[in-house]
Amino acid sequence: MERILISETIKYIGQKVKVSGWVNSRRDHGKIVFLDLRDRTGILQIVCVPDLVKEINEEWVLEIEGVVQERPAKMINPEIETGKVELSAENIKILAKAETLPFDLRDLKVTLPTLLDYRPLTLRNEKINDIFKIKEQIIRSFRKTLEDLGFYEFQSPIITPTNAEGGAEVFHINYYDYNAYLAQSPQLYKQILVGAFERVFTVTNIFRAEPSMTTRHLSEYISLDAEMGFINSWEDLMDTCEIIIKNIFSDLQIKFKTSVPQISDKIPRIKMREAQQIIFERTKRDNRKEIDLEPEDEKEICNFAKEKYGSELIFITHYPTKKRPFYTFTDPADEDYTLSFDLLCRGLEITTGGQRINDYGKLVSNIKKWGNKPEDFEFYLQTFKYGMPPEGGFAFGAERIVKQILGLENVREASLFPRDMERVDQRLSLLQPKKKIKR
Amino acid sequence: MERILISETIKYIGQKVKVSGWVNSRRDHGKIVFLDLRDRTGILQIVCVPDLVKEINEEWVLEIEGVVQERPAKMINPEIETGKVELSAENIKILAKAETLPFDLRDLKVTLPTLLDYRPLTLRNEKINDIFKIKEQIIRSFRKTLEDLGFYEFQSPIITPTNAEGGAEVFHINYYDYNAYLAQSPQLYKQILVGAFERVFTVTNIFRAEPSMTTRHLSEYISLDAEMGFINSWEDLMDTCEIIIKNIFSDLQIKFKTSVPQISDKIPRIKMREAQQIIFERTKRDNRKEIDLEPEDEKEICNFAKEKYGSELIFITHYPTKKRPFYTFTDPADEDYTLSFDLLCRGLEITTGGQRINDYGKLVSNIKKWGNKPEDFEFYLQTFKYGMPPEGGFAFGAERIVKQILGLENVREASLFPRDMERVDQRLSLLQPKKKIKR
Repeated sequence: MERILISETIKYIGQKVKVSGWVNSRRDHGKIVFLDLRDRTGILQIVCVPDLVKEINEEWVLEIEGVVQERPAKMINPEIETGKVELSAENIKILAKAETLPFDLRDLKVTLPTLLDYRPLTLRNEKINDIFKIKEQIIRSFRKTLEDLGFYEFQSPIITPTNAEGGAEVFHINYYDYNAYLAQSPQLYKQILVGAFERVFTVTNIFRAEPSMTTRHLSEYISLDAEMGFINSWEDLMDTCEIIIKNIFSDLQIKFKTSVPQISDKIPRIKMREAQQIIFERTKRDNRKEIDLEPEDEKEICNFAKEKYGSELIFITHYPTKKRPFYTFTDPADEDYTLSFDLLCRGLEITTGGQRINDYGKLVSNIKKWGNKPEDFEFYLQTFKYGMPPEGGFAFGAERIVKQILGLENVREASLFPRDMERVDQRLSLLQPKKKIKR
Repeated sequence: MERILISETIKYIGQKVKVSGWVNSRRDHGKIVFLDLRDRTGILQIVCVPDLVKEINEEWVLEIEGVVQERPAKMINPEIETGKVELSAENIKILAKAETLPFDLRDLKVTLPTLLDYRPLTLRNEKINDIFKIKEQIIRSFRKTLEDLGFYEFQSPIITPTNAEGGAEVFHINYYDYNAYLAQSPQLYKQILVGAFERVFTVTNIFRAEPSMTTRHLSEYISLDAEMGFINSWEDLMDTCEIIIKNIFSDLQIKFKTSVPQISDKIPRIKMREAQQIIFERTKRDNRKEIDLEPEDEKEICNFAKEKYGSELIFITHYPTKKRPFYTFTDPADEDYTLSFDLLCRGLEITTGGQRINDYGKLVSNIKKWGNKPEDFEFYLQTFKYGMPPEGGFAFGAERIVKQILGLENVREASLFPRDMERVDQRLSLLQPKKKIKR
């Protein structure tokens, strides 16, 4: 007999079927035992005599043959898709046993470090599992939107030859007899590819040797990057971001009934200096001379946007030139500021982007100005030497979008296997002796 | 005026339009100059007076306004989609200039190292560009097929905590004050996720510190990995591979008119020992005691499959236990061999897979037997400690599929930015002094 999926059982009332899955829970009621069986499509109530399920307990893997029956009216569970039926078990085959669980997996009350120490197990909890279904839906919506807009997807390399953008937050690799580094972003590659494909995007792992433990940072995370040539204006980039985020929200509402942040018809766009002025007026906190927004500023300006525009998202634009990378296009009206933007959602930056310099000479001079060597960028510079249209792009942080939509406290909750300075799968201090490595 | 794409021009005969792109070529005919303009959708012939295009040359980026006209009958070019039309240019705006090209980009006659040194430029060559459109189509077909079969996509981590499967071919990372490694495969993670999602797949970069330069190996490549629980038999895995590869072939035929390898209704499946016997009988080369097939054996057995079954693909099964990793399921009928397989295509392995051990005790004992420490696998082992169904999986090498389908000589041609012991973007010897690193 072929296995059917649990979500299909409602079509088989009165018929004998075979289902397989994990024991989600067991309830003993004297002469009758109820199991909840879980597969990838849902949960099904199994009714059996005690003899059939002797030592069987949570997370055992079973194959069960039996007859699908309608539940008595008062036993109907409207919470689940299969709440109107149950399976009267006739035959149970044990596919795998499980040891006693270290904690209640249904009603998870463990701290985040414990939850992560037991990630392979805690991923089986329905709520935790849903986080990652939602994350993949976000990626799917991002991909679908860009494909529909004529963007070419590419696989970005992880190993990079130079610590191109400088900074200490880069991981070093022993690469044969040479040095190499983990990619901090696919930036240079996506620009190179605009020269060959015009519009490109990638879903890629990127790496930051973040030396602190915050709720917003990971050492390895998923970046949803796009770059487009032949823009008419840098505002095209924000327009494209808007289309993407709106599609993400509407797909989540339709497919997962997720409640999503409130968003206005057009996401408000204000300059960083204006944002600082507004924050000053609202809070008397004077950060008007700072070259970036502080985390508390990002929260405050989001409060403002929600109150004034009914939008939990806001674009902050025109970051100072000295705060942005060498390839950022400056505002012709004021060279101290750039045609760049961040998209904030509920108080946190989820996207960053901007127009790039496409003029070869200007780019070379900026590389020098930023204290780098043009020779180190010779490969990248070919793109501009041989003709590059006006272009720009942006990157969404996948885990941050998930965190902000679901209201998670820590970005680690949105990473399947979060890496930070203390953890790779498990706590490193438990796995390895601490070791000073020659750098 | 809004830009239209070159592929759309055929709908605008007699109308004024604006197009943008790169100059693919320039031909001067006295009082008239022909440009071929290239955008992401195709090539369009532009007709102009010399004054309008003075110094304009190959790879300059232009925005052109003009009227779409039908070409005279004898000027029609049946090779391209827009071969029936041309644009009579009225106005040209230069978006970016280009320096003189180092070689003829249309008729590329350079060695592979030069082609790769100039990758940002050579990717603009139509034939090279097509390789990567085809590669992405292969990935898209893989993804679509598995999504339709109920597989969950995930993003696999690149940083791993231990050199889990042993071997020297792993890259070391300085990870804060600890050691970490680049993933050699998403194997352990995809198995962990079968415990939570049943059926999973990933498109991920993986890394091998391959110490030799062959035409088949890269230091970083794209792995198309899948893993499925609740299999009835390990043959389910080969059946799934067959569905995937057939969909890849048919999508390529439909969307790119690519000619693909010949394939029989059912891809033949033969045991490794039988293959060695057949090779011995055909060539008198006696590798019957070897524990793996040599590259020349893989070619010979593919010749055999083509002659006997009309298939350029063949599954080789039952590799020796000692040749496979600790988690491989052995054949109950003969414990010296495993329920594993390789899929060969035109003489090269493009896929490897097999059933895995899902019994916790057996897995622990195998980890020891293979000389590893169960403590190093504690995270992974949770999956099996708490109930894991019979399962298995496989991995396709994306670049190898591209290479074999297109008949490329070197797998590097199928990697956008190939990494090997001598190259990361450019030749490392040109970028860095060679350096002995303490390991």
